[in-house]
Amino acid sequence: MFVKNAWYIAAWASELDTGILARRILDRPLVFFRGEDGAPAAMLDRCPHRAAPLSLGQCENGTIRCMYHGLRFDSAGQCVEVPGQTMTPRALNVEVFPVVERDHLIWIWMGDADLADPETIPDSSPHNGERSARGGYIRYAANYRLIADNLLDFSHLAFVHSATLGTRDQAQTKAVVEKFDGGVQVNFTTLGSKVPAFVKAASRLPDRVDRFQNYRWHIRSCYFVQDSVIAPPGEDADTTDPIAFRNHTINVLTPETETSTHFFWSLAHSDFNPDEPNATEIVREQVTRAFEEDRAMIEAQQRRILDEPDAPMIAIPADRALVEVRRMEDRILAEEAAVRA
Amino acid sequence: MFVKNAWYIAAWASELDTGILARRILDRPLVFFRGEDGAPAAMLDRCPHRAAPLSLGQCENGTIRCMYHGLRFDSAGQCVEVPGQTMTPRALNVEVFPVVERDHLIWIWMGDADLADPETIPDSSPHNGERSARGGYIRYAANYRLIADNLLDFSHLAFVHSATLGTRDQAQTKAVVEKFDGGVQVNFTTLGSKVPAFVKAASRLPDRVDRFQNYRWHIRSCYFVQDSVIAPPGEDADTTDPIAFRNHTINVLTPETETSTHFFWSLAHSDFNPDEPNATEIVREQVTRAFEEDRAMIEAQQRRILDEPDAPMIAIPADRALVEVRRMEDRILAEEAAVRA
Amino acid sequence: MFVKNAWYIAAWASELDTGILARRILDRPLVFFRGEDGAPAAMLDRCPHRAAPLSLGQCENGTIRCMYHGLRFDSAGQCVEVPGQTMTPRALNVEVFPVVERDHLIWIWMGDADLADPETIPDSSPHNGERSARGGYIRYAANYRLIADNLLDFSHLAFVHSATLGTRDQAQTKAVVEKFDGGVQVNFTTLGSKVPAFVKAASRLPDRVDRFQNYRWHIRSCYFVQDSVIAPPGEDADTTDPIAFRNHTINVLTPETETSTHFFWSLAHSDFNPDEPNATEIVREQVTRAFEEDRAMIEAQQRRILDEPDAPMIAIPADRALVEVRRMEDRILAEEAAVRA
Repeated sequence: MFVKNAWYIAAWASELDTGILARRILDRPLVFFRGEDGAPAAMLDRCPHRAAPLSLGQCENGTIRCMYHGLRFDSAGQCVEVPGQTMTPRALNVEVFPVVERDHLIWIWMGDADLADPETIPDSSPHNGERSARGGYIRYAANYRLIADNLLDFSHLAFVHSATLGTRDQAQTKAVVEKFDGGVQVNFTTLGSKVPAFVKAASRLPDRVDRFQNYRWHIRSCYFVQDSVIAPPGEDADTTDPIAFRNHTINVLTPETETSTHFFWSLAHSDFNPDEPNATEIVREQVTRAFEEDRAMIEAQQRRILDEPDAPMIAIPADRALVEVRRMEDRILAEEAAVRA
Repeated sequence: MFVKNAWYIAAWASELDTGILARRILDRPLVFFRGEDGAPAAMLDRCPHRAAPLSLGQCENGTIRCMYHGLRFDSAGQCVEVPGQTMTPRALNVEVFPVVERDHLIWIWMGDADLADPETIPDSSPHNGERSARGGYIRYAANYRLIADNLLDFSHLAFVHSATLGTRDQAQTKAVVEKFDGGVQVNFTTLGSKVPAFVKAASRLPDRVDRFQNYRWHIRSCYFVQDSVIAPPGEDADTTDPIAFRNHTINVLTPETETSTHFFWSLAHSDFNPDEPNATEIVREQVTRAFEEDRAMIEAQQRRILDEPDAPMIAIPADRALVEVRRMEDRILAEEAAVRA
Repeated sequence: MFVKNAWYIAAWASELDTGILARRILDRPLVFFRGEDGAPAAMLDRCPHRAAPLSLGQCENGTIRCMYHGLRFDSAGQCVEVPGQTMTPRALNVEVFPVVERDHLIWIWMGDADLADPETIPDSSPHNGERSARGGYIRYAANYRLIADNLLDFSHLAFVHSATLGTRDQAQTKAVVEKFDGGVQVNFTTLGSKVPAFVKAASRLPDRVDRFQNYRWHIRSCYFVQDSVIAPPGEDADTTDPIAFRNHTINVLTPETETSTHFFWSLAHSDFNPDEPNATEIVREQVTRAFEEDRAMIEAQQRRILDEPDAPMIAIPADRALVEVRRMEDRILAEEAAVRA
């Protein structure tokens, strides 16, 4: 079960640079390419003639040609050529999906096309600049909900990420959770924490720091956005101290199948160390390592759940945000199911 | 569902040179070896005692010994030795299948043995000579029908094989399809075509050629036989021009499972370029490359079909031969099912 | 279906030297580690909180910490810490299993814990000494019963192991099978046999020998114990000839899943060749090779059985011991099923 009426990230725009991208989303095989006007197009990756994947085809002036028998389709999914005949019957059209390119990202709408309003696409413009570790992508062999749980829960920072993003002293920090329309917001403040390894490598921060983390989870779009400040002790979340590490992060999930997920991320940061020309690259490398720590744990968790799918999970108070989100999401899923029925 | 009462190619005879061959055919595990008289034998690859594969055994004077507990069977499937006892009960006999060796090929009959008439085995003698790229074998991870479709349809030549067997100008050629008892015949003529890459490499043909392709598909046996002539422009299919490339090709399918197939092929050709001692090898290499092009496409098509097995395929006029063959084959399958019931 | 009320070997004690061992037994995922008192503990390898494998955790003073969210458990399965809170509710306790460490082995009881009597653990003390090729472990991709069949049947020695443990002349030897309470005993005597390769390499025995093999199969525990003597011709099983090769072997099966098995083995031998300092290592290497011969055959047999699960196996007189054992084991399985119902 997936929320259908939502904008999902399908790809980084740069993934279309080489022409054709094949990607499964909400368990449907899709192909992406650019139409005659340069705008991205998404359609079912299956030729209606003999079911060959269009992603094995070729782009020709904004159309895509199936390289099995040569049928050709425009970016609206219309069959525009059948070799050896003049007719191009409508039955040969391919199912297409609304897509929007914005802020280096390709967004897709897999639900009712009439409801697809680009105005509701989350704003990712903070990642357009230069100090942005943009383009992050990881494939998880796990259901997207397990990754959402992970993002919604800061208590794992102290354990999974004790050598990268987190520090053991964060284990005692209490998150403050608030609901808003369409998601939850969490504030997580750790005063006098050790400086985490992922910024220590590139910053001029002292060994002890204060950390202010605010994140919002937008249920539709599985869009996680975080504003984080790591500052010398005694300052606050609004500090203008140039050595403070301020960042704006997005972590976005797009279900591939029931047991696998596309994960897109980007981290835009302040100019916290002008003496370090590779600061963005160092941060990218450290964060990549941290996500690999998550991936190892979450994929192992997924295997254990598949093992005994009905065994219960026992919630603890630290799970409040994720419990709340699952409840809200279940409501959306039920509404969509009711509309379909 | 497979046609059972038919001669299928089980192997090239040379595959038995090293003694024992294990191969799954129509989804049954079989073992092949040579009996005391040198004739090939085929039996279930499963010892009746404890289900060990006989193909892990040893040949001894035309018998096969299971190397788990030493039971031994002759080429008629009779148990002729049980170590430690003198009795060899009939219950220990193994199921055997009629096999015939002819024209470098081993043929097998998996259906009602009483109906197995070697006179109905297709004639492959044109491949006995020296100018024959014989012995071709490819395993496809695809149902045999998808490969049959491919062989029955020349329109893919212009796309899948535009760099090997075909040329893009073949996209407009119309095939002429005729039924005969037990199959269909297709004629496919392309005048003024570019010379295809697979003969260009070894021949003295000019850049423009006329191509005459005639093929017959024999439904039982999944046996495709093609006579093809590639000649300088203005000649015809009966040309005796020594530089014309004339060939007789067989492409034969034997279902392994519902989603995999053994593909045997051979190409015997005229002496089209006496100056090129490696002509046969060049042709073999080019054709092998072309079949790999098919394999990549057909296996991708198979995966897409397994993905959404009930999604329709929309036929176009170019599919006439394959639609006809599927109809005839369905009739045979229904007849066999009726006899079993 | 597995016998539950039985002591199974879970591991060699040395496998816990590095801290944490993950192993699936009777199709349940388990984690092993040493508690505060140094005694081994076994529990379900699944944190009750979010199903993360505890085996990805860390040992801390005889407790195990889940490294996802930091919950900690003692060796009795009690949750002793939940980071960020003071409560450790009982609902967070983990299922534990009785374990006993004895004779370099870790034993586990997967059934009704009230019936777990350590007095019934088979005696493996002969393997405590120095001349013991101890620590053998093989994972089989096969149901444990197929391996039990193999151990209960000496007729395969002449075929599977004709280059290692056995000799072809053993094919005619008749085994003497007797039942006892809880298992069967088999005597297998081969006079005037060729000396088998696995002792030839390290011993001073002549080319012809007499072999006396006695083995007992204990159904609960899947515990096979063998006393074997290989002596110069004319002596008997009680020979004190120093060149005779006497050994005490255990081969023990622990089901991992319905189609895979843990196999533990050890071979303790007499001082049959004081001139050969590497005698134990030579024997270990030879026996390891022999078990690989078994594994190849049994895994192929398993695949064939999965292929056609309902095809019958035809018993021969040499199968008497294994037929008897299966009958006794089926009785135990039926009794356990009756108690559960």
